[in-house]
Amino acid sequence: MKKPTAVLLMHCPDQAGIVRAVTDFLYENKGNVIYLDQHTDAASRQFFMRVEWELDNFLIGKEKIEEYFETLIAQKFDMKWELHFSENKKRVAIYVTKLSHCLYDMLYRYQSGEWNIEIPFIVSNHDNLRHLAEKFDIPYYHFPMTKQNKAEQEAAQLKLLQENDIDFIVLARYMQIISSYFIKAYAGKIINIHHSFLPAFIGSKPYHAAHARGVKLIGATSHYVTEDLDAGPIIEQGVSLVTHSDKVSDFIRKGKDIEKITLAKAVSKEIANKILAYNNRTVVFE
Amino acid sequence: MKKPTAVLLMHCPDQAGIVRAVTDFLYENKGNVIYLDQHTDAASRQFFMRVEWELDNFLIGKEKIEEYFETLIAQKFDMKWELHFSENKKRVAIYVTKLSHCLYDMLYRYQSGEWNIEIPFIVSNHDNLRHLAEKFDIPYYHFPMTKQNKAEQEAAQLKLLQENDIDFIVLARYMQIISSYFIKAYAGKIINIHHSFLPAFIGSKPYHAAHARGVKLIGATSHYVTEDLDAGPIIEQGVSLVTHSDKVSDFIRKGKDIEKITLAKAVSKEIANKILAYNNRTVVFE
Amino acid sequence: MKKPTAVLLMHCPDQAGIVRAVTDFLYENKGNVIYLDQHTDAASRQFFMRVEWELDNFLIGKEKIEEYFETLIAQKFDMKWELHFSENKKRVAIYVTKLSHCLYDMLYRYQSGEWNIEIPFIVSNHDNLRHLAEKFDIPYYHFPMTKQNKAEQEAAQLKLLQENDIDFIVLARYMQIISSYFIKAYAGKIINIHHSFLPAFIGSKPYHAAHARGVKLIGATSHYVTEDLDAGPIIEQGVSLVTHSDKVSDFIRKGKDIEKITLAKAVSKEIANKILAYNNRTVVFE
Amino acid sequence: MKKPTAVLLMHCPDQAGIVRAVTDFLYENKGNVIYLDQHTDAASRQFFMRVEWELDNFLIGKEKIEEYFETLIAQKFDMKWELHFSENKKRVAIYVTKLSHCLYDMLYRYQSGEWNIEIPFIVSNHDNLRHLAEKFDIPYYHFPMTKQNKAEQEAAQLKLLQENDIDFIVLARYMQIISSYFIKAYAGKIINIHHSFLPAFIGSKPYHAAHARGVKLIGATSHYVTEDLDAGPIIEQGVSLVTHSDKVSDFIRKGKDIEKITLAKAVSKEIANKILAYNNRTVVFE
Repeated sequence: MKKPTAVLLMHCPDQAGIVRAVTDFLYENKGNVIYLDQHTDAASRQFFMRVEWELDNFLIGKEKIEEYFETLIAQKFDMKWELHFSENKKRVAIYVTKLSHCLYDMLYRYQSGEWNIEIPFIVSNHDNLRHLAEKFDIPYYHFPMTKQNKAEQEAAQLKLLQENDIDFIVLARYMQIISSYFIKAYAGKIINIHHSFLPAFIGSKPYHAAHARGVKLIGATSHYVTEDLDAGPIIEQGVSLVTHSDKVSDFIRKGKDIEKITLAKAVSKEIANKILAYNNRTVVFE
Repeated sequence: MKKPTAVLLMHCPDQAGIVRAVTDFLYENKGNVIYLDQHTDAASRQFFMRVEWELDNFLIGKEKIEEYFETLIAQKFDMKWELHFSENKKRVAIYVTKLSHCLYDMLYRYQSGEWNIEIPFIVSNHDNLRHLAEKFDIPYYHFPMTKQNKAEQEAAQLKLLQENDIDFIVLARYMQIISSYFIKAYAGKIINIHHSFLPAFIGSKPYHAAHARGVKLIGATSHYVTEDLDAGPIIEQGVSLVTHSDKVSDFIRKGKDIEKITLAKAVSKEIANKILAYNNRTVVFE
Repeated sequence: MKKPTAVLLMHCPDQAGIVRAVTDFLYENKGNVIYLDQHTDAASRQFFMRVEWELDNFLIGKEKIEEYFETLIAQKFDMKWELHFSENKKRVAIYVTKLSHCLYDMLYRYQSGEWNIEIPFIVSNHDNLRHLAEKFDIPYYHFPMTKQNKAEQEAAQLKLLQENDIDFIVLARYMQIISSYFIKAYAGKIINIHHSFLPAFIGSKPYHAAHARGVKLIGATSHYVTEDLDAGPIIEQGVSLVTHSDKVSDFIRKGKDIEKITLAKAVSKEIANKILAYNNRTVVFE
Repeated sequence: MKKPTAVLLMHCPDQAGIVRAVTDFLYENKGNVIYLDQHTDAASRQFFMRVEWELDNFLIGKEKIEEYFETLIAQKFDMKWELHFSENKKRVAIYVTKLSHCLYDMLYRYQSGEWNIEIPFIVSNHDNLRHLAEKFDIPYYHFPMTKQNKAEQEAAQLKLLQENDIDFIVLARYMQIISSYFIKAYAGKIINIHHSFLPAFIGSKPYHAAHARGVKLIGATSHYVTEDLDAGPIIEQGVSLVTHSDKVSDFIRKGKDIEKITLAKAVSKEIANKILAYNNRTVVFE
């Protein structure tokens, strides 16, 4: 049985002594470190670190860790940081349109226990995949979208997300552009899968564009959603070989497998609190 | 010992009976077919075929095959076609600038006998790699390029290429834009390696751009050179994973390995007469 | 809308004129060939071919094609061959034990229409995955297996398979050794997924063995089941990188994704009648 | 310009406080840490760490670091450790037989400056590749090997290696089994490339065996040489897809590219002091 742990994700301007200060803080308070990884970006001179320790003998109470870490460590180094507890299951909302392959694959990981999360509901702008949600007893909310009702529907969605304490949103081939207003409300908390190896083939119908260009490999990219379309920080990318004998429909079929695996890898990292985004790039710890 | 063979590469509008007509033509003239592959592009309704047969019992003399095939087969089907003989070694000119990894790898394949070709000379806009050419006793022509002398230097190169009966040119990280005039003279006969997975990161410094974009895979693309920069028919693409811990210099170092292998695969296909380009895409036979 | 087609898969000792004879047979009877691929194995001097043609104007009735092809072509060349019609949906039985990832992935492809097949039932030696079968309204037969009842249970399974006209069986992580008697009854019709890159790590617990050996890549192999354990003709193999930081449980988790994708690729080829097995090797057409 | 650095590679039984002790040691003596990576193997409860720091302001003289580290840190934690200085170029001996692709590729990396090493000499049991050594002005020693002279020749080689202060040996497709006596003299200091994805196809002619088995992917493995043939700790593995149309000669040709790239990756890690071997497995830091 895995013991309860806490994870600190932090970044700050690089300087000497950060690792020492953090490991001292944990060691002196009887926190048994089971994971420590760090990275220094040479160009921006930023330091990134993820540390995980067991809570059972830790001398600082769970509810006090934030205050103590901020006071004793973070402010000295001008850190930005997040604290997560392994006992808190992530609450994830899934957005879909009509294609089921990514949703299906996520439901498998959820239902088989690979992902220890809650999926309080699924949102869609179409009603097509309701049957799948029902198979797994997950509420399915249908928000038909038009130019006229978009602001209103997004507001309703935001209410739903907040009422359900959603930690992050996965766009599992959700074919709607999300407004800036919505994105700001969940900044860094929306993960998308785009069906090309970005930055090639931004926008709609990337497989058609890839086929027209005559590429010999196709790809998929999972990234955080920002206000610039398909331009947010990349978390994971996958590719597959194609040949002249593959039609657009073959690109789409082969692509589905890359999309679902690539998205799942990114979501797995998010669940494990292993991603730090900075300057439109990500640090993804092992 | 491999017997002498002939290869026909052909394409034409698709219709019934093409394979049958070609195989009949070879069979009735005692040509033993050792390779036959075909492809029909559904969108353009074009038919593509590569057939290779042994010449030793073939009833039509080598010098007459072109005439007979054109008369008896090609004109009926409105074919474009090329005939190649395995006994004719390809004559390949290599263009380089300052980076040696692709040149080096090509020289290995040439010198070890993996590629049964002639390399009559190496061209460069710099003198840096002369020592390498000298190691392998290959003439090295240095053509310094300026805006002023470009037309003149390219004319001199064309003369050199023609005098040496060059079959095709390989730009092995040649960092000069070639004029339309030159490209037309060797249309479909110039193979480039670009250091990105096209169409992402066209133009100069693609690894810097890839790093700035925060991609999780880098690539290389070998393609025929056309008048649109980095937009010609793609022959082969390769990729490599990168992580947040890779600096631009790591992208460049890892990229070199992908570049040389990707270029070598494309050149190998060209040597074996296995590529047909059509509508800015390629059919690359196994 | 795709027109109804027929597929011939054939192999025979190589000689001149086979392609010509088959294409003549189809052409003269107004069969529009939409796919033709062939392969000659140099070592065994065997010729392999797959040809697919549209039936709508074909002059020979569906029920007569077998007879005519055997009489007019096959016996001349000493061919082994199979005939398939696109209109006949394959009937596939799935065998599972306790792990759901491959079953789940297959059910997605079935239910979403990616695979145009029937799944008349699922067989298992445990009752764990019944809920999944029920979600998709597929009969689930539980055959508990002991040393004592094995022969009896397999006999009951064979009866079930025959009553349901099963075309082929997929062992989707079915953790039971099947008897020679059973294998002979469905020779060349049982596809397994083994969780290693065969021939490494034959038998049970391959991820544990791979971890102990300290490999840097893990794999999965889909193959036809023969009487030699994990030694049948390989259809498809996939791999994934691992590092020293991956524990056995990580190997297992990463491996599941490779297993399901590798198995799906193999089953897709089987559904499309693109595999010929010969001398414990497979020819897998594009 | 990169400043001179020192690297410590260490491993010991896991316990709390190791990272803290090492970072304290460096911090208090004004060593600016530029790289720190660690790994704990859950099964063996061993802790592994690599730390690199700049020497320019370090308060402990280069010649004293070993003594101080052993006294103040290593003995407390029962550590095994190695100290390396970036200013000391590695001295590498290359062993070859008749195939040149790996040697060639290594010479490119050496000569182009990708590898900042010395290659004092090349050893071979044949004279075939002398011309290549001469092109690069590297001494080439031909040691013909027979059952009778093996012990004597290996003794002569050991003398040569010691006289030249060789840090490690690369078997770049050296097709001779090395005696236990020799291996013990350079334990953990001999890197081999085997032309299969180990542990599949141990021993000679792995491509022939792979072809006979009908695999769909081939591979190469770089590993440390131990007394058990092809069974030493694996450093790096690579693979390439193959199809039914690939003959054994195609396996060999495609394999050469994987071999040279896989070997180069392993040697690069060795040069950078990024590998720790333990219990027949390796920790390979990023």
